[in-house]
Amino acid sequence: MAPDSPVLLAAVTLLSAFQMGYLARRVGWSRMAHKILPPAVSGPPEFERTFRAHQNCVEFYPLFLVTLWTCGMFFNEEVAAAAGLVYMVARQIYFNGYIQSTKKRLTGFYLTLAALLSLSVLALTGIVGGILDKYLYIHI
Amino acid sequence: MAPDSPVLLAAVTLLSAFQMGYLARRVGWSRMAHKILPPAVSGPPEFERTFRAHQNCVEFYPLFLVTLWTCGMFFNEEVAAAAGLVYMVARQIYFNGYIQSTKKRLTGFYLTLAALLSLSVLALTGIVGGILDKYLYIHI
Amino acid sequence: MAPDSPVLLAAVTLLSAFQMGYLARRVGWSRMAHKILPPAVSGPPEFERTFRAHQNCVEFYPLFLVTLWTCGMFFNEEVAAAAGLVYMVARQIYFNGYIQSTKKRLTGFYLTLAALLSLSVLALTGIVGGILDKYLYIHI
Repeated sequence: MAPDSPVLLAAVTLLSAFQMGYLARRVGWSRMAHKILPPAVSGPPEFERTFRAHQNCVEFYPLFLVTLWTCGMFFNEEVAAAAGLVYMVARQIYFNGYIQSTKKRLTGFYLTLAALLSLSVLALTGIVGGILDKYLYIHI
Repeated sequence: MAPDSPVLLAAVTLLSAFQMGYLARRVGWSRMAHKILPPAVSGPPEFERTFRAHQNCVEFYPLFLVTLWTCGMFFNEEVAAAAGLVYMVARQIYFNGYIQSTKKRLTGFYLTLAALLSLSVLALTGIVGGILDKYLYIHI
Repeated sequence: MAPDSPVLLAAVTLLSAFQMGYLARRVGWSRMAHKILPPAVSGPPEFERTFRAHQNCVEFYPLFLVTLWTCGMFFNEEVAAAAGLVYMVARQIYFNGYIQSTKKRLTGFYLTLAALLSLSVLALTGIVGGILDKYLYIHI
């Protein structure tokens, strides 16, 4: 069931880490543009939206990694990798939208949730199947 | 030593991701109840406690995942999964307590630390045994 | 290619979790020293720098784990473990420097980025090789 060398999951994971690094960089650029020296985190609305957009990405990143890998290892690697790419695109839409206005963050955010929910449901299916298989000898 | 299909660890991990999603949702509900539109993160004390309770869960979540998996892969999967469930209950007690008052966060917090410490010590035991075994050919 | 029992990666990962726990503790001590009760996160500059130094470590921690493990599993475990130790030292230099002044965070920060970049490039090399091998039957 589980892929022996989950290279697609690893590729999507590494790409998502690059994206997170890029989003952190965007916060740094926003600091420079608005002359807000660390450790300050308050400033003009655009900076605060940029800062908070990044924070939200940071908060959800472990949930993304967990659902990506449980879906990929216990359901299907290719499906998980594809949903992972959708999540990354959704995060970018969310981030770019949030910087423009608080309201424009919503489309990307709901897309993000849809990708996470899909990964979660498939992961759950795979894990329940795995538990039935391993502990109750029921093969589906 | 390491379980070939760590389905219990995966199950606890996925459950903990659901819990983290639920706690993020609680912050969203608190925003609505107190009419605090993002990106603002300050407001009445109850909102600030809810926000900070969630932040603390976010900060500790990677430490939980690391100790859960190193304990599960290098010491014992069932023990790790059980301690993982204790951690999740402790986090919920912490979160619910913190929302009521700053002081009421402490019981859950100490329980959280106890679960993390147990996972860490067992993981350390397993890893030290693994290093002795693999690199020094000493089998315990 | 991938180590069957990546005990060195696990050891570095567990050590890094201990370090993150220690840095969280440092924020707690700073709260006590400056009498700043949660959920407050603002106070004298030294406290705010300590708080933000820790937040930055938290934000980057998943990126560290991702690059450590993809480098270790798809490129080379020993190299990844060594670069992981460098990252941990860099984080400590960053944290200690940041507490003294905003400017003194920079040396550690650039070292941190150098370690992350090294891990990323090697991980990318390994993953690209893995994809060529698995899906295109090209062995390098």
